[in-house]
Amino acid sequence: MSMDLTFLGTGSAYPSPHRGASALVLRTEGDCWLFDCGEGTQTQLMKSQLKASRITKVFITHLHGDHLFGLPGLLCTVSLNITPSPTQPPSCVDIYGPQGLRHFLRVALSLSGSQLLFPYAVHELEPTADQCPPESQLDAVLESSISESLHPQECLGRTIPLDVEGDSYTLLEDEHFVVHAFRLFHRLPSFGYSVQERERPGQLNTQLLQDLGVKPGPVYGRLKSGESVTLENGQVVTPQEVLEEAIPGRKVCILGDCSALVGEGPLRVCGGADILVHEATLGDGHRERAVEHGHSTPSMAAAVARACRARKLVLYHFSQRYKPLSMRTEGEEDDDVLELKRQAEEALEGTSVEVAVADDFLTIPIPIKRPH
Amino acid sequence: MSMDLTFLGTGSAYPSPHRGASALVLRTEGDCWLFDCGEGTQTQLMKSQLKASRITKVFITHLHGDHLFGLPGLLCTVSLNITPSPTQPPSCVDIYGPQGLRHFLRVALSLSGSQLLFPYAVHELEPTADQCPPESQLDAVLESSISESLHPQECLGRTIPLDVEGDSYTLLEDEHFVVHAFRLFHRLPSFGYSVQERERPGQLNTQLLQDLGVKPGPVYGRLKSGESVTLENGQVVTPQEVLEEAIPGRKVCILGDCSALVGEGPLRVCGGADILVHEATLGDGHRERAVEHGHSTPSMAAAVARACRARKLVLYHFSQRYKPLSMRTEGEEDDDVLELKRQAEEALEGTSVEVAVADDFLTIPIPIKRPH
Ligand SMILES: [Zn+2]
Ligand SMILES: [Zn+2]
Ligand SMILES: [Zn+2]
Ligand SMILES: [Zn+2]
Repeated sequence: MSMDLTFLGTGSAYPSPHRGASALVLRTEGDCWLFDCGEGTQTQLMKSQLKASRITKVFITHLHGDHLFGLPGLLCTVSLNITPSPTQPPSCVDIYGPQGLRHFLRVALSLSGSQLLFPYAVHELEPTADQCPPESQLDAVLESSISESLHPQECLGRTIPLDVEGDSYTLLEDEHFVVHAFRLFHRLPSFGYSVQERERPGQLNTQLLQDLGVKPGPVYGRLKSGESVTLENGQVVTPQEVLEEAIPGRKVCILGDCSALVGEGPLRVCGGADILVHEATLGDGHRERAVEHGHSTPSMAAAVARACRARKLVLYHFSQRYKPLSMRTEGEEDDDVLELKRQAEEALEGTSVEVAVADDFLTIPIPIKRPH
Repeated sequence: MSMDLTFLGTGSAYPSPHRGASALVLRTEGDCWLFDCGEGTQTQLMKSQLKASRITKVFITHLHGDHLFGLPGLLCTVSLNITPSPTQPPSCVDIYGPQGLRHFLRVALSLSGSQLLFPYAVHELEPTADQCPPESQLDAVLESSISESLHPQECLGRTIPLDVEGDSYTLLEDEHFVVHAFRLFHRLPSFGYSVQERERPGQLNTQLLQDLGVKPGPVYGRLKSGESVTLENGQVVTPQEVLEEAIPGRKVCILGDCSALVGEGPLRVCGGADILVHEATLGDGHRERAVEHGHSTPSMAAAVARACRARKLVLYHFSQRYKPLSMRTEGEEDDDVLELKRQAEEALEGTSVEVAVADDFLTIPIPIKRPH
C-alpha cells in the first residue's frame, strides 16, 4: 500500500501567500486523511495534486484559528466535489478533535445554510485540565451548546475520554490502521495523532510452494491468511513454512502546537515512529518567547524525536518570518529555515534521526518497511 | 478626498487560486471598509496594496460561507497587525450584517481562544421573511444563542430593524457618509449596502474675495462653513457670493447575492449610484439555473443598473468556470467573462451605463464629482 504525507500549509498564526495555515494530508492508496485545516486549506488542496473529494477523515489538533478556520469551507467544497451515487449512500466523514469542535461546526454550517451531500460526525476528545493554562478553559462557551440540536447532516459522534491505562485516546482500529491521540500542552488543549499501520503477513514463497507441489489457487489465500493446509498427499503445509517474514506497519505521528508533552502517552504512542511531524515555530534563539506562547523550537522538537526513537523528524508550523526554502536569502541567518534544520540536527547528534523542514506542497513518501 | 474600490475576491461558491471568495474594499483616504469576507480574504489582502490594520468597518451581505468564513481569521490578523498606542485606546471595529452574525463570530472567536487587541461590535440587520425561501429561516439556530455572554472584546452592537418608511436600514450617518442597507432575495436573507458621501461646499473664489478686499484668514473658514461675514467697512459677504458650486457626494452601492430585489428600498437607496456592484454568477444562457440558486445573470444585473440610473455597473461573483481576463482563451465563449460583459452591455443599450467585469485585485478609482 502506497503512503505519503503532503504539507498543504506550514505557517503559524495566519496563512500567508508563502506559507498556508496548518494542514497536511496523509494519503494511503486513494484515501486522504486531513490533519488540521487552517483558513485557505481548500485553495491549497486545489493547487496540489490531491483531490478534496478523497478526504474521508479529518483530525484537528486544537481549536486555534490557524488550524481550524478552513474546516467549514472545506466541508462545503468536498460536498460540491462529490458525485452522489444512485446506488450507494455517501459514507460518513469522521472528524476528530478537541471538545468544542462539534459546536463550532454546527454553528458555522447552520448559520451559513450549508447543506452537505454526505453525513459527518464529530468525535470529541476530552482534554484534561493540565493541557493549557487555567484561563483557557472553555466550560462557559460549551455550556450553552449542550441543548443544541444536530445539523441536518450531522450524526452524533462519540465523546472519547482519556484511556487512563494507556494515557491516550483510541480513535479507530480497522483492518489496516490503529489511530491514537495523545495530550500536549499549549495555550488551548492540543493533541497529537499517531497512525499505526498494522503488520502485514509476508509474501508467499512461490518457489518453495512449487517445490512442495502446491499449485496456485485458493490454497494460496488460505496460507497467506495464516491457515495451515493439508495437501492431497496428506502432507500438512503451515504458513510459517511458506511465508516470508511479516512486514512491519509504518507509524506516522503528527503533533499539534505544543510547548510540552503531557503525561506518558506521547512517548508511548509515538515510540519508533517512522515519521514524527513536530512544530518549530521559532528558532532556538527565541526559546523563551516560543514557550511563553505555547510553542516549540527545533531543539525541543528534536528532544521529542530522540525520546521516541523516531526515524525522521519533520519540522513545520514556522513563524511567517521563516521564508520557504525557495525564497531564502543567504546571510539572513536569523530568518533562515535551514538554520532551524541545523538546530534540530545539532540536538540530534549521535542519533540516526533524519531531519527535514517542510514547505507548502512538500510530499514525503513513506515506503513500505522491510521485514525485521 | 480620494476614494477607490478594490476587489479582493470575485468568485462564487468557494475560493479558487484564480478567483478568491467574495471580498471588496472601499478605501477613503486611509480608511478601509470591507464588504464581505470569504475564506482567504486575509491572504488576498496581503497580496494587495491594502493594509489589514486599516480596516475600520466590515459589512457582510449574507451568511453564506463564501462571504463569511474569512471573517474570524481576518479579525485575528488585523489584531496581529495593529500597534497598540500607549495613550489612545484602539477604536471599535463595527461589523454590520444579517442576524446570526453576532452568534457566529462569538462562537468562532471564543472556541478558538482568539483575543483581539481592539473591541468589536456586531450590528445586526433584521431580515424580513420575504428575503429567502421559508425553509432557510434561522430561528432554531438563533434561539439557543440568546442567553450567551459576550466575547471578551465584544461590545454589544445594535439590532437594526427595517425602517418601514424608507424601506431600508440606516447604519451610520457621520460627517462624511451616510450608509444604508436594503433587502435582497437569495437562498439566505441577503442585503445590499449603499455608501452615500455627503455633498461638500464648493471652493472659495479667492479672486473674488480679493476684489472684495477680504484678506485670507479665519474669515475664509467661516465663509466656507456657510456663515455670512461683515467686513470692517460694514459690507456683508454671504457664502453664496464667494463659494463655487457645491460638490455632490459620490454614491457606491454593493449588492450581495440575489435573484431579485425586495421592496422599494433598493431602487430608492441606489438611485443615481456612481458605481453599482452587482453579482452575475452565470451567463444569461443559464438564467433558470442562476435564479433557482438565488443568483443573477448579466442582464438581470443590467436591469437593476438601468432602474437605478447608475453610472457604472461592475459585475462580480462569477462562477469559477469564468476564468479571469488574463487567463481566458478565445473561442470558449460559454466560459468567457467578456461574454458576460457583452450580455450586460446589450441589456443596457440606449443608456449611458458603463459596464465592467471585476477580476481579483482590480481597483476602480472613484473620482470627485463635478458640481452640477
Ligand atoms: Zn498554530
Ligand atoms: Zn495554536
Ligand atoms: Zn456567494
Ligand atoms: Zn450566497
